[in-house]
Amino acid sequence: MAVTGIGEIPRGADLASLINEAFVRGGGALVEGDVLVVAQKAVSKAEGASVDLSGIVPSDFAKSVAQLTGKDPRVVEVVLGESVRIVRMDRGVIITETRHGLICANAGVDASNAPGEGIVTTLPKDPDASARAIREAIRRMTGSDVAVIVSDSFGRPWREGSVNIAVGVAGMAALDDLRGKLDDRGRPLRTSVVAIADELASAAQLAMGEIGQVPAVIVRGYAWQRSDDGAGPLKRSPDRDLFR
Amino acid sequence: MAVTGIGEIPRGADLASLINEAFVRGGGALVEGDVLVVAQKAVSKAEGASVDLSGIVPSDFAKSVAQLTGKDPRVVEVVLGESVRIVRMDRGVIITETRHGLICANAGVDASNAPGEGIVTTLPKDPDASARAIREAIRRMTGSDVAVIVSDSFGRPWREGSVNIAVGVAGMAALDDLRGKLDDRGRPLRTSVVAIADELASAAQLAMGEIGQVPAVIVRGYAWQRSDDGAGPLKRSPDRDLFR
Repeated sequence: MAVTGIGEIPRGADLASLINEAFVRGGGALVEGDVLVVAQKAVSKAEGASVDLSGIVPSDFAKSVAQLTGKDPRVVEVVLGESVRIVRMDRGVIITETRHGLICANAGVDASNAPGEGIVTTLPKDPDASARAIREAIRRMTGSDVAVIVSDSFGRPWREGSVNIAVGVAGMAALDDLRGKLDDRGRPLRTSVVAIADELASAAQLAMGEIGQVPAVIVRGYAWQRSDDGAGPLKRSPDRDLFR
Repeated sequence: MAVTGIGEIPRGADLASLINEAFVRGGGALVEGDVLVVAQKAVSKAEGASVDLSGIVPSDFAKSVAQLTGKDPRVVEVVLGESVRIVRMDRGVIITETRHGLICANAGVDASNAPGEGIVTTLPKDPDASARAIREAIRRMTGSDVAVIVSDSFGRPWREGSVNIAVGVAGMAALDDLRGKLDDRGRPLRTSVVAIADELASAAQLAMGEIGQVPAVIVRGYAWQRSDDGAGPLKRSPDRDLFR
């Protein structure tokens, strides 16, 4: 269910209230067990996670990367500031590891749907904390225990098109760990860990669209497992990764 | 909506009929605009896309890879036979490009939920053709124009857990191309191509589970665009890929 009618989200907005009120106005109600998927862009706007490019002085390195990639050197400066390392830099693309441990294009820095001209949004400082705050506010307002996912659309190696994934998670286990479970013939399952939170984020985007008017979607009927581990379990540790 | 009660799928089964009949038995009906997501494993079983390991003689190279990765040399032989190149081979994992142009672990060769002991399933020979055949059979049986996705769960660089993606597509555009569309402030969208078919496959897995009893899921209410391009547009061409 798409939550519509929220409108532009100002810095400092109480996002949980905006979402809950808009959903109730539309005749809905958040209930126990719902998963509330909130677009990263909405969270970043409410938290003021944005940068005014007019105040940015690009370093020589940022200028050189900008020339290589055809990007605004001030945007590159912001991207580098959000990053701990560069994973790939080629053909107009900068893929970095962000300070959250996410690997994505432009460190999640984005000019589309930003709060103003010459403004770019960045990822929330701590997306798990953002998700937790929304979850707690929803519980105070409605009494319902809902899981919250902060989602963003990421590109992928080898495949065209972006998919929504979970950058922040609260209340639910991000992974469904089936290790030890057996298939119909009693043999161990091949794919034994499923990235449920990423799949929920992808499902939500089908109702969210990309134009920016639907910042929140409610997924009802998925039996998630309770956890306070956030989105951390979705990040592969370097020693398990073949594509660092 | 999960399609339950299909049971074990024998080689040569008319999968479209099995799915449609099971769904009708459960009180449902496929209607115009539905997306029918079918697990690759079910398609492979119906098409007989499986290999009896007892007839496989591993090459010296397969034996050497098996030793390196701790796998059954006969399984490695099957994996190599399904592949056009090795992308990574390390830490017990073989990631190859399959003859379909998919990049995944073990070329999609799988022993779990296989049709028998010592049998492994392979990906369908032509997953787009499989999807088209199911789509046409559903139209003959029900008169309804449904899109069909053949899905499989794939691992990903940098992230733990698998997600379901679309390996075969029929009837719908796999990508939602928003290039040229503008955001709320009239600026071009950052993420302008969305991998809708992969997101639908991921959404479906939430109802499918991994244990193997639910080989088909119906997604209702998503307004897909008609296309006969199959899953090809989801595969990134080598010249656009930074992670070959």
